[in-house]
Amino acid sequence: MSRKCFGVDIGGTTVKLGCFEADGKLVDKWEIPTRKENGGENILPDVVKAIEAKLEELSVSKGELIGIGIGVPGPVFEDGTVNACVNLGWGVFNVGDKVREIIGLPELDVKIGNDANVAALGEMFKGSGEGFKNLVMVTLGTGVGGGVILDGKILTGTTGGAGEIGHMPVGIDEEEACSCGKKGCLEQYASATGIVKVAKRILASCDTETPLRAMGGFSAKDVVDLAKENDKVAVSVMETLGEYLGKALASIACIVNPKAFVIGGGVSKAGQYLIDVIEKHFKEHAFGPCSDVKFVIASLGNDAGIYGASALVLS
Amino acid sequence: MSRKCFGVDIGGTTVKLGCFEADGKLVDKWEIPTRKENGGENILPDVVKAIEAKLEELSVSKGELIGIGIGVPGPVFEDGTVNACVNLGWGVFNVGDKVREIIGLPELDVKIGNDANVAALGEMFKGSGEGFKNLVMVTLGTGVGGGVILDGKILTGTTGGAGEIGHMPVGIDEEEACSCGKKGCLEQYASATGIVKVAKRILASCDTETPLRAMGGFSAKDVVDLAKENDKVAVSVMETLGEYLGKALASIACIVNPKAFVIGGGVSKAGQYLIDVIEKHFKEHAFGPCSDVKFVIASLGNDAGIYGASALVLS
Repeated sequence: MSRKCFGVDIGGTTVKLGCFEADGKLVDKWEIPTRKENGGENILPDVVKAIEAKLEELSVSKGELIGIGIGVPGPVFEDGTVNACVNLGWGVFNVGDKVREIIGLPELDVKIGNDANVAALGEMFKGSGEGFKNLVMVTLGTGVGGGVILDGKILTGTTGGAGEIGHMPVGIDEEEACSCGKKGCLEQYASATGIVKVAKRILASCDTETPLRAMGGFSAKDVVDLAKENDKVAVSVMETLGEYLGKALASIACIVNPKAFVIGGGVSKAGQYLIDVIEKHFKEHAFGPCSDVKFVIASLGNDAGIYGASALVLS
Repeated sequence: MSRKCFGVDIGGTTVKLGCFEADGKLVDKWEIPTRKENGGENILPDVVKAIEAKLEELSVSKGELIGIGIGVPGPVFEDGTVNACVNLGWGVFNVGDKVREIIGLPELDVKIGNDANVAALGEMFKGSGEGFKNLVMVTLGTGVGGGVILDGKILTGTTGGAGEIGHMPVGIDEEEACSCGKKGCLEQYASATGIVKVAKRILASCDTETPLRAMGGFSAKDVVDLAKENDKVAVSVMETLGEYLGKALASIACIVNPKAFVIGGGVSKAGQYLIDVIEKHFKEHAFGPCSDVKFVIASLGNDAGIYGASALVLS
């Protein structure tokens, strides 16, 4: 058998694993539950057991293991030390060292990255960001996450906080607090949660007719679907998102001057309609010399994490 | 004699030159005029002549030349190609290749950088940013410039536009256009020009007494001086600057997560007062995990360019 690499994406509920060839081709992918009890002490042993079982299944010896890349939900320093992954119950320790110890291979190449950053790397490696060495990924899900890739590598930052674009302060006179405690963060307007909140605000401030009023509760998807049908209120919600996000991306363009923005997360299922709204506002605000940026929808979905984790080792 | 390196900072009026030891110690510095006529064709030959004369004066042979670093006023690609330096009359060409050709040393290490980026590198190398490998320099002068240093190196970006923080879109319903053509750029509020403009707006919108009203024309320095004396209007101008700039730096902190902000340019002569105003607003908006950033005033003044240019070669 040829040598293998594993890409692991540790989430709060499940751990996604992928087995890859040396050229980054996916051989197999599967999931195991994330056992968070007792400070998440079982998570890494479970990951190692899963990898060892897969190696045996494929008749690959441990010596033929190229390495293991792991994405974790929290800030990660350059050396693989996590700085408290609250969702996993983890404190501060070096994940790479721990994995090498459990698997019993002191020299194994084990690389760790923040999950949002690793997803960005995945999109660059095998997704819609392929070919772009400088890109910024924006994940519009329950919150807003991000990852900055410069010259093909994840930008970690001083304390592992680079790419936290959901917390760029963009709001004006915002009165509600974000989950982080500050007021006016980008994710208060551009996440799925933000879309619903902005829609409710607009509904409360006008009498415009819209099917949203008859719905007991509605989702971000309902708003996007109605906006595509030209519903005035829904369009206004999406324009608000476009203005905040377009302006934030114009700021990012001035700072790191990327070649592409890759838009992912649940909200990105809105596709070209979403790209058009964001790009319109981006063009309005972006500084000329930094404004030649491609906008693309992420293509790997939930697999971006395992692809990116493998790329930590393979690229 | 020991080997020497030259740091050159090409401005629209003068070219500043510095001769450095291999360890970055400044041996001598001087200036020559920038001859911009005929598409600036004399500028690089003048620079080379000045360097050759200095080598002769110091009895250093060309073979003992370590290299030449050059900062230019415009976007620069990674390979040393300038993309039109309008202030010099230059089009698109590779500055490093040209210098090697003129000096007749095809293998000489010649490195080119954008002047604002190079100044940032200078502050990291020998100024108040010393010891910080991840820093963002903000130059508050006639306009607002910037430079991003990551892991000790200048971030250039895809088209040489990284660090153009003066054009981050921060204004709300701004009606005047920035020099770049967009509306609401950071430099419309946080530059010396912006300070005067904001002051005039505030004066026109209120009746508050202030010595500014009696002055025929006033400068940014007048405003800063009065703010330090607690003049209400002047304080309000500086609070406006602090809010726009603090918020913009909080966004930058989310994106690249630097360890320090180095504040330079004419406005930075306001010193600790300025730092206090900016930092107060920064803390109000910055995302917790990215908020542990030092604020320092630049210390190299007009010499940041030659130090940074030498660092392009020496660091």
